[in-house]
Amino acid sequence: MTRFLKGHGTENDFILLPDLAKLDPRAPVPPLTAEEVRRLCDRHAGIGANGVLRVLPVGTATEAEGLDTAAARWFMDYRNADGSASEMCGNGARLFARYLRDAGLETADAFDLATRGGVRGVSMSPDGEVSVDMGPATSGVASVAEISGARFPGQQMSLTNPHLVCLTDVAVDTINLSCPPVVDDGLFPDGVNVEFANLRSADSDPPRVRMRVHERGVGETRSCGTGACAVAAHVLARIGRDTGRVLVEVTGGELTVSVTPAATVLSGPAVFVATGDIDPDWWTSIPE
Amino acid sequence: MTRFLKGHGTENDFILLPDLAKLDPRAPVPPLTAEEVRRLCDRHAGIGANGVLRVLPVGTATEAEGLDTAAARWFMDYRNADGSASEMCGNGARLFARYLRDAGLETADAFDLATRGGVRGVSMSPDGEVSVDMGPATSGVASVAEISGARFPGQQMSLTNPHLVCLTDVAVDTINLSCPPVVDDGLFPDGVNVEFANLRSADSDPPRVRMRVHERGVGETRSCGTGACAVAAHVLARIGRDTGRVLVEVTGGELTVSVTPAATVLSGPAVFVATGDIDPDWWTSIPE
Repeated sequence: MTRFLKGHGTENDFILLPDLAKLDPRAPVPPLTAEEVRRLCDRHAGIGANGVLRVLPVGTATEAEGLDTAAARWFMDYRNADGSASEMCGNGARLFARYLRDAGLETADAFDLATRGGVRGVSMSPDGEVSVDMGPATSGVASVAEISGARFPGQQMSLTNPHLVCLTDVAVDTINLSCPPVVDDGLFPDGVNVEFANLRSADSDPPRVRMRVHERGVGETRSCGTGACAVAAHVLARIGRDTGRVLVEVTGGELTVSVTPAATVLSGPAVFVATGDIDPDWWTSIPE
Repeated sequence: MTRFLKGHGTENDFILLPDLAKLDPRAPVPPLTAEEVRRLCDRHAGIGANGVLRVLPVGTATEAEGLDTAAARWFMDYRNADGSASEMCGNGARLFARYLRDAGLETADAFDLATRGGVRGVSMSPDGEVSVDMGPATSGVASVAEISGARFPGQQMSLTNPHLVCLTDVAVDTINLSCPPVVDDGLFPDGVNVEFANLRSADSDPPRVRMRVHERGVGETRSCGTGACAVAAHVLARIGRDTGRVLVEVTGGELTVSVTPAATVLSGPAVFVATGDIDPDWWTSIPE
């Protein structure tokens, strides 16, 4: 396995490994070790990325993990840069879907992906945007994020992963996110992604929000798909709507989120930057 | 121009652009804009690197910049990640030399490179290490670097670029380098790279030093070729020698530095990680 593509969705960037798309769905799946993922994602010693997307046919790989796959034909084997397997990644799923279409592995405008977070519907629009259904956003209790003594009231939200959305009048571009915000550890025992958001225009169609995000275990990132969904759902509730679209300006670009009671659809660009081959001598030098 | 290689020397990482090696030396040289370099080096929106190494034949390109090239056949057109042209880069020159040999553009074990910092001799050893002569290291005056109120006495050194070498008994791995050390702005009006070093063994052959570095305008990096040379020259002087070898443990690996009055030879690994093609749609989307 030596081919790779590098690309990003609103500057959440990924290494995509396509070779196993040719694998017989019933064949044993070659391992991808945590150390291999860490080396690939190392931004100085490797290629560098936020995570790895491995293309696998639904079959042996999904059965081994006991995943529900329904009509999906392809499994997004997503790994975080630290080597851990991860359930879902919205911007990653959008890039993964774009690859399947570009490579001719899917030909419809809408299809399903198998992920560790369940089957996800994706769709391609004529303008090149790629959308993924992130499932329903659920709202929790009010809480607070604190940065250098400044308190930002916020709202607990969940999109399978935990969020604290702080809609504020403080210009978010002036907030120092170099250190983790202090949050209620009792409410968020596994950590939380904290979004700081300014409502730029409530009356425009769609409403427009500027968002910055501090991701648990990572630090500030240029984009967070579930974070944009959490912000959009919270903003709609604040302006008295249950459903609708919100345009979210993240640091790495623009995402559009469509909210209904049953779904949160994340849409935006998915861009490939390069394609290439991993050096075989380097690859085989990675310890087991 | 769409081919690239990505590699590193002690985890100083570079994007190498090889296509112009085929250019007629007398032909006009295609531009590489600062914006193109910034996009290539962007670690999230591009491929990601500390800098770009473009392979150019000595000829039109070096004449246009009025460079002395002597017997060199290849010009290392080095750019920093911010898009600026740069004179020299020790780890970059070692990776550049490895490419010329791997590609068969040079066949001798030792040859000269043309750089904006003058002609540099490089050599390849049978164990795969690549060496580059960084020119003489010169010593200046005593000065001090301050971090969070702690004062580290140091020595001004120059390898065409300015250094402040702080040999200390404080374990350098405990020092917080997340912010720039405070230095004497009068002595270093253009900024300075600050090295913090522990002498691990003065009596071994070669002596062994652990070094961390804060590079001006960048922050802490995993390696700095001229920094390793500055540390080695200073350590040798401290232990009463003018010449000799020093092994420098940087965060990204190990470098060996050989010091004589006329030369400072930097040796270490140079590793290619991947080779590939820049996506032409992405490349042409970069503004002028």
